Amino acid sequence: MYDLIIIGTGPGGYEALLNALRLKLNVAVVEKSKLGGNCLNRACIPTKYYRAGSHTIEKLDKLEKYGIQLEVKGISFKEAKKHKDEAIAFFRKSLSQLLKSKKTPVYRGIGKIIDKNKVEIIKEDGTKEIIEGKYILIATGSVPTSVGGIIPDGEYILTTENFIEDLEELPEQLAVIGGGVAGCELGYIASVYGSKVTVIEIKDRLLPISSISTEVSKNLMRKFKKAGIDIRLNVYVKEYSVENGKVKLILSDGNEIVVDKVLLSVGRKPNTENIDEIGIEKDERGFIKVNDYLQTNFENIYACGDVVNSPMLAHVAAYEARVAVGNIFGKEKRKRDYSIVPWAIFTAFEIAHVGLTEEEAKEKGIETVSGYYPYTYNEKAVDELEPEGFVRLVFEKNSKQIIGASIVGIEASEIIHIMAYAIKNKMTAQEVHDFIYFHPSLSEIFIYATYDIVVGKLF
Amino acid sequence: MYDLIIIGTGPGGYEALLNALRLKLNVAVVEKSKLGGNCLNRACIPTKYYRAGSHTIEKLDKLEKYGIQLEVKGISFKEAKKHKDEAIAFFRKSLSQLLKSKKTPVYRGIGKIIDKNKVEIIKEDGTKEIIEGKYILIATGSVPTSVGGIIPDGEYILTTENFIEDLEELPEQLAVIGGGVAGCELGYIASVYGSKVTVIEIKDRLLPISSISTEVSKNLMRKFKKAGIDIRLNVYVKEYSVENGKVKLILSDGNEIVVDKVLLSVGRKPNTENIDEIGIEKDERGFIKVNDYLQTNFENIYACGDVVNSPMLAHVAAYEARVAVGNIFGKEKRKRDYSIVPWAIFTAFEIAHVGLTEEEAKEKGIETVSGYYPYTYNEKAVDELEPEGFVRLVFEKNSKQIIGASIVGIEASEIIHIMAYAIKNKMTAQEVHDFIYFHPSLSEIFIYATYDIVVGKLF
Repeated sequence: MYDLIIIGTGPGGYEALLNALRLKLNVAVVEKSKLGGNCLNRACIPTKYYRAGSHTIEKLDKLEKYGIQLEVKGISFKEAKKHKDEAIAFFRKSLSQLLKSKKTPVYRGIGKIIDKNKVEIIKEDGTKEIIEGKYILIATGSVPTSVGGIIPDGEYILTTENFIEDLEELPEQLAVIGGGVAGCELGYIASVYGSKVTVIEIKDRLLPISSISTEVSKNLMRKFKKAGIDIRLNVYVKEYSVENGKVKLILSDGNEIVVDKVLLSVGRKPNTENIDEIGIEKDERGFIKVNDYLQTNFENIYACGDVVNSPMLAHVAAYEARVAVGNIFGKEKRKRDYSIVPWAIFTAFEIAHVGLTEEEAKEKGIETVSGYYPYTYNEKAVDELEPEGFVRLVFEKNSKQIIGASIVGIEASEIIHIMAYAIKNKMTAQEVHDFIYFHPSLSEIFIYATYDIVVGKLF
Repeated sequence: MYDLIIIGTGPGGYEALLNALRLKLNVAVVEKSKLGGNCLNRACIPTKYYRAGSHTIEKLDKLEKYGIQLEVKGISFKEAKKHKDEAIAFFRKSLSQLLKSKKTPVYRGIGKIIDKNKVEIIKEDGTKEIIEGKYILIATGSVPTSVGGIIPDGEYILTTENFIEDLEELPEQLAVIGGGVAGCELGYIASVYGSKVTVIEIKDRLLPISSISTEVSKNLMRKFKKAGIDIRLNVYVKEYSVENGKVKLILSDGNEIVVDKVLLSVGRKPNTENIDEIGIEKDERGFIKVNDYLQTNFENIYACGDVVNSPMLAHVAAYEARVAVGNIFGKEKRKRDYSIVPWAIFTAFEIAHVGLTEEEAKEKGIETVSGYYPYTYNEKAVDELEPEGFVRLVFEKNSKQIIGASIVGIEASEIIHIMAYAIKNKMTAQEVHDFIYFHPSLSEIFIYATYDIVVGKLF
C-alpha cells in the first residue's frame, strides 16, 4: 500500500510529488496523458514560449537602436512550434528522470477511485489495474468548456489545447471566441505570427474580469487595434457552419465572419466526471467539495488545483498541493488562504495584478487613494526600448496601507511580487516609498507611484 | 533667498529637486555640466543601454528557436551610441522641461559655498554670481580615480566617463584596468560589440567585492573566458607607454600587452575639492562628514550621494536626497539607514545581491543555512531562452530568518527586491516558501530555493 497516490501530474500533482519525495514517502502517480499535465503541455508553459517569441518578433524593428542591422528572412510558426515542443519535452524528461531515479511508479491511464483506499487505473488498451494507498490526492485539473452549441472538432473549431499542443501552421484568418485571458493571449500570438485575427467577446471589453480594471482593458484594446486585430464586443456567435474549408460565423448583431479556423476559448471546467464510484461530494459545477484543509468528504482523500473551487491558476494548484501534502504528512495543519494571489496575463502587454482594484475596493465599501506612474519615464524601460506601461497602486485611504497593485508593461509578472509582499506585510505607502530600490530598475517605479501620496503632488 | 540650493543634478540632486518641488519650495539648482549628472550622462543609464544592446546581440543566434529567420548585416557600436545619446537626451529634456515649467532657476557653473547661506557660481566664461539660500544641499557626486601613475588622456587611456559619453567607435583591442563593477560591465559590452578585450585585475578574481560571493565570481569568469575575454588576475600595470598609436602595458608579472586603447576603471572619489571656503568638514578621503541626518558641520548645509561616505550607488544617493529634504522640510526627522540596499551588476550575467553572503555572515559569526536553485529548471527562464543562472538564499541557522540573497540570471536586478522585502520584514524560509508566486515566473524560484530547508532534501 502506497503512502500517497497522486492522480494527475500537472502543477498540482507535480508539486505534491516533490513534497512527497522530500518527505521520503512511498508515492505513486497516475497520469492518463503526458507527464506535466495541461500547464506544461498545453497551457501556461507553451503559451509563454510562443509569447516570448511573439514579443521578440515585435521588437525586431527596434533593434537598429542597438546598432544591430538585420534582415528578417521569415517568421515561421511551424519552426517556433518545433522548438516549443523541444522546450516542453525537456521538462517532461526531467520529470520522467526524477520519477525513475526515485523509483516512483507511474500508472498510465485514467485513475478512478473505487474505494476510499483504492484507485483503479483504466489503461488505454482497456485493461485495468487496482492500486492501494493510505491517502489519495485528486489533481486531475480541468478541461475546456464550450458555449452555444459550438463543438470543437480539432480542425476548424479548435480548443486552446488544440491550438497550443497540435497546431503546426497558423490559419490565414482566425476568429477567437472569447476575449478572456486565453483568448487575448493566443489571439495576440496568432496575430504577431501572421494571422488576421478577430476577437469576439460577449461583454463590453477585453479581459472582462473583476480584477482587471477598465483602465487596463482600455490600454489593451488600443494596442490590439493598432496591431490590426478586429475586436467585436457585446456580441456572441448565434450560428456557425463549416463550408468549403471555411468557417462561417453569424454573430448576434447580424454580422457574418468567414475565417479559416476558430479558436474557442470560453473557459474551463473541472475534470471530475467519472473520477470516483464512492460518492466524493462535488458542487453543481463539478468542483470537488473540500474543507479548509483541502480534505474531501473522505478523510484520507484530498483534492487540489482546478478540481477545487479556487482560482483556476497553475500556481494556486501548486500551492494547494503543498498545503494538502503538508496537512496529511507534515508537522502542523494549515488552512488554505487565497488572500494574496498574484497573477499575470501575457498578451499585447504583460499585465499583472494582486489584491484589489479601485473598483473592487469601492464595491467592498473601502475608501481608497491610488498612485500611478508610467513606464515612459523609467530609465530601465527606456534602455530596454520598452517604454509602454504603467503601475497603479491602491491604498486604503486612512491607513495608507497597500491593498492592491496592477502593473502593465515588461516584467510586470515579476515585480508584482514585490507589491504582493508589501500587501502580505501590511506595508504603507510611506514604507513602499522609503524602500531603497536598485537604480536603474523597473521596481523603482514604486517610489514614483507613491510620491503624490507620501510627499505631495508635482503638478 | 531660496529655500534650498541644490548643487548638482545627478540622482541625488534630481531627487532632492523632485521633493522640493512637491513641497512647493522655492528652490534653485546649480549644475556645472549636463543636467542629470554622471548617472544619466556617463554611468548607470547609458551603461544599461549598451548592456541591453549587447545582451540582445548575444541572443540573436537563438532567435531561430522562435521561428525567426534572420540575417545579421552588421553590428555598429557607432549606431548604438547615436541612439543611446537620444535616449539620454530624452531624460535630460524631461528634466529641463520640468525645471522650466516650475520656473526653477538653473545656475550653470561650478558651485562653491562661500558663506553658510551663499553659493558662488563660477561660470564657464569665468564670470561669477552669488546666490543665497536658507539651506544648501551638496550633491556633486564623484569623479574617476587613477592608480599607479596612469593618466587618462581621453584618447588612448580612457576613463569610464570617456568610454560611455564620448567614444564613437570601439578599438580593435581594449585593455581594461580593473575587474570591478565598471570594468566587468564595460569590458563585456566592448567584447560583445566586437573588441578583443583583456581585463587586468590586481586581486584574485573578477568582482573582488565582499558582497560578491566567490561562487558568483567563478561563474562570471567561466562566461568571460567563453566569450574570448582574456583575464589577467593577481597583476597590475607596472609601466605603460603610448607608441605609434598603440598602448603598451607592462604587467607586474613581466608580461606585455599591446592594445589600441585602455579603459581605466579603478574606482571613484568624491567630487569635493574646492567645494567650499567655509570649512565644511571632510574625512581623509575627501568624503563630507555628515551626521545620521545627513547634516554637515553647518546646520543648514546637507550632503548626499557620492560625496558622503556611504555605498557609492545612484539609488543610495536618491534615497539620501529623500531623507535629507525630508529632514530639512518634512514633518519628522529620520536617520539614514543602509541596512537593506539591493544592488546589481550588468555584465555577462545580470547579478544582483542584497544583505549578507554566506562568507560575510561567517565573518560576523552568524551561523547560516542556505538554499540554492538553478534557472535551468525554471520554465520561464527556458521559455525566454535564458536558462543560465541561479539563486542563493542565506538564512540564519536557528531562526531560519532570511539575511541575504544573491541572484545571477535574467531579471536578477528586479526579483532581488522581493528578497529585499523579505529581509526587511524579517521573513523566514517557511514564509518565503509558503508565498504564492505566479507561474510561470522567475520569482517562483524562491519556492524551490527554500524546499530543502523547509520540507527536506530531494536527493
